[in-house]
Amino acid sequence: VTVGLETALVAAVGSAHVTTDPDLRAGYEVDWMGRRWGTAVAVVRPGNVAEVAEVLLACAAQGAHVVVQGGNTGLSGGGVPGGGEVLLSTTRLSQVGVLDRAMGEVTVGAGASLADVRRVARAEGWDVGVDLASRDSATIGGMVATNAGGLRVLRHGTMKAQVRGVRAVLADGSVIDRLTGPSKDSSGYDLTSLLAGSEGTLAVITDVRLRLVPVLPLGATAILRFDTLGRASTLVRRLVGSLGSLQSAEVVLGEAMDLLCAELGRPLPLTDAAPVYLLLDCEAADDPTPELLAALAELDGLDAVVASDRTGRARLWEYRERQSEVAGARGTPVKLDVALPLPGLDNGLASISAAVRSLAPDSVLVVFGHLAEGNLHVNVVGADLPTEQLTAAVLGIVASAGGSISAEHGIGRAKVGWLPLTRSVADVAAMAALKGAWDPAGLLAPGVLFESQGTGLSGP
Amino acid sequence: VTVGLETALVAAVGSAHVTTDPDLRAGYEVDWMGRRWGTAVAVVRPGNVAEVAEVLLACAAQGAHVVVQGGNTGLSGGGVPGGGEVLLSTTRLSQVGVLDRAMGEVTVGAGASLADVRRVARAEGWDVGVDLASRDSATIGGMVATNAGGLRVLRHGTMKAQVRGVRAVLADGSVIDRLTGPSKDSSGYDLTSLLAGSEGTLAVITDVRLRLVPVLPLGATAILRFDTLGRASTLVRRLVGSLGSLQSAEVVLGEAMDLLCAELGRPLPLTDAAPVYLLLDCEAADDPTPELLAALAELDGLDAVVASDRTGRARLWEYRERQSEVAGARGTPVKLDVALPLPGLDNGLASISAAVRSLAPDSVLVVFGHLAEGNLHVNVVGADLPTEQLTAAVLGIVASAGGSISAEHGIGRAKVGWLPLTRSVADVAAMAALKGAWDPAGLLAPGVLFESQGTGLSGP
Repeated sequence: VTVGLETALVAAVGSAHVTTDPDLRAGYEVDWMGRRWGTAVAVVRPGNVAEVAEVLLACAAQGAHVVVQGGNTGLSGGGVPGGGEVLLSTTRLSQVGVLDRAMGEVTVGAGASLADVRRVARAEGWDVGVDLASRDSATIGGMVATNAGGLRVLRHGTMKAQVRGVRAVLADGSVIDRLTGPSKDSSGYDLTSLLAGSEGTLAVITDVRLRLVPVLPLGATAILRFDTLGRASTLVRRLVGSLGSLQSAEVVLGEAMDLLCAELGRPLPLTDAAPVYLLLDCEAADDPTPELLAALAELDGLDAVVASDRTGRARLWEYRERQSEVAGARGTPVKLDVALPLPGLDNGLASISAAVRSLAPDSVLVVFGHLAEGNLHVNVVGADLPTEQLTAAVLGIVASAGGSISAEHGIGRAKVGWLPLTRSVADVAAMAALKGAWDPAGLLAPGVLFESQGTGLSGP
Repeated sequence: VTVGLETALVAAVGSAHVTTDPDLRAGYEVDWMGRRWGTAVAVVRPGNVAEVAEVLLACAAQGAHVVVQGGNTGLSGGGVPGGGEVLLSTTRLSQVGVLDRAMGEVTVGAGASLADVRRVARAEGWDVGVDLASRDSATIGGMVATNAGGLRVLRHGTMKAQVRGVRAVLADGSVIDRLTGPSKDSSGYDLTSLLAGSEGTLAVITDVRLRLVPVLPLGATAILRFDTLGRASTLVRRLVGSLGSLQSAEVVLGEAMDLLCAELGRPLPLTDAAPVYLLLDCEAADDPTPELLAALAELDGLDAVVASDRTGRARLWEYRERQSEVAGARGTPVKLDVALPLPGLDNGLASISAAVRSLAPDSVLVVFGHLAEGNLHVNVVGADLPTEQLTAAVLGIVASAGGSISAEHGIGRAKVGWLPLTRSVADVAAMAALKGAWDPAGLLAPGVLFESQGTGLSGP
């Protein structure tokens, strides 16, 4: 880091909140999957919106790029440096405001963790609509910036649907404040929705106004077996319309379940092994167990396990929630996050499976995900994997089938080369024009979402 | 219109679809409220996305601005010319695609009317989530471009929530296509949400992929009386959380109800006059009447009328739906569309009422709206009204109270001067930068949402 830049950053946030020591920076430079794209010249932790603006202005003046990091739980590399950036950590922007009990809303700092906000909300009878396995580390700002999905999208939508408004700092230090005002306000462009999912390329989100959902104290969880994804998906489509308490419909394929049971030393969730396991989770103000059992009773040849107590439900959920951990235990998997049109699930999966067998015969294919949205997390586990070829094959199949190459993890650095599979030249150009309008010098997150231009600011 | 422009437009869409005769243009130049901002040099009706692109390229080449018009039911003047534009009518973009029964989705042309789409959807067991009184004329494209609200927002959200994706043509003739793909797709900026509510300033929407809602065949409607808006609003907040079949909570204030009953020669809906009337509407697969009656039975001193049959419900709905027509019967009212924070409804209304009495003592104040969102349509009815002063007073009160100066009608031309009341200089600049990125020459809808710059292209 240059002396001038370090001095400017210290002036912006104080010396206690600027880290340039490589050993202390290291934890910020490696992502959750153990991947490192490049080093940061400094880690800076602003404590409020004014300090964020000062940091951005200092970086612009000193010719330094900026990458924003929340809980560093991202899976596409959008929150770690590509090389030479100042890393702006939202750690200190962690305040949780006073909850509006009547409206079920609360304003929180971008750096507040999902778990912290949930704790505050639940104490007042409210909850955050989005839930995901990384809840203890994932920050609200990062979840908005990536438009996180997770385990309850079928009931409450993605993170975007939970956001009433944001405050954010643009590359020129100007502040957009959409935190207040009524829920219905048709006064110009929806900048909040534009920022949700923009992965730190357009602005630094500092605060988020969340729309909460009522907390539902009673639950029931079931795991069922199916022969095909299509049959499981047909059931889920029906239940989404008829089972009011349904909030999760998670799928785990047989090979993934076998690996998890072997790694963790557990029995299969059901007596017989199956090609497809479906976890259904219901929550409601009143016990949803009878409703869930009634829905299951209509199925022919039902083989299911159901739990309504906290311990039993947690035990069933582990078969799904520990999939990521197990898939990562043997090294960094090739990790893809795709969505397929529901009618094409079985064909798409068969093609993906064949391609993986062909390119990496000794690998284990760990597939799990959110079935209501056709969102499959495809993890190829093994040694010496041909990452590029596997990625090209799987994403090519998905794009040909009309699917999404990144259903909920974002494009980040990891998928930027594949974006043209599902976004036209005109579409990418239109997005780049928006980026250029707000960040003409390319200060924010170079190499994220768009190919690095090699123009604009140069890293020191 | 210049010969060169007319020739280019005819080349783009054929002579049958270019209108330059002033008499034939006139119907397009006056908005629903009878206001005329300026004339169009020509009306052009492209029949497909390629023709839309050709029209935009022709206008750019000939130095003509463009304003887009759907059903011409807008209330803020965003769909009529300011003077000298080519008016691009979406009339011929009216195709309704094949409905996906399983997913409840359909792709329709921007010029398809809400009523037409509803008819197709209902025949297949589906419905459009947004409903509004102008359903026979309002087009889906216009409803997306203005992010229309209407009568069922509390249940299904605004138009934005009904849109899975759009196809749109930018000012440079390039086409963005987000009509296909899975519902969950975190691959770059949410251009669909950016276009929803952009009022024709960013692009011309040609097609919309709609997410439908299940049709609910049985209904029940009630009108209740209250002493204050606050008490009515408290009930609505409670019912939104507990009465699953509730889809509308419409308010009509006493003075508005009196005027409607006098104009239409009807009795009041309830025996006694009241300061506040609340219309509750429920729809469900099973008859929601018992659920509605049970909720009403919990109220102290209840005075209500309830109807469950089609004729009776329609009769009650007329007390709300004909408010606009009655308010407009004595000339163009000063028409404001505001939202107030729910706890501030009574104070805000009292301030608005006092200001109107002071500025226009002989006027009638017609207030009705969507209570769940605190959205009040404030109509000042009378002769020789001081429009600017009334607007300034009412919108000033609303902005001071933390409300919205345009909750669902958009900014258009009518409110562009008032936008700084609730949007900061930085916010407006950020929006203008986005506009400049996609439409650097200011081709589309000059004077809508932003003050006319007097730069860029000049009208012929």
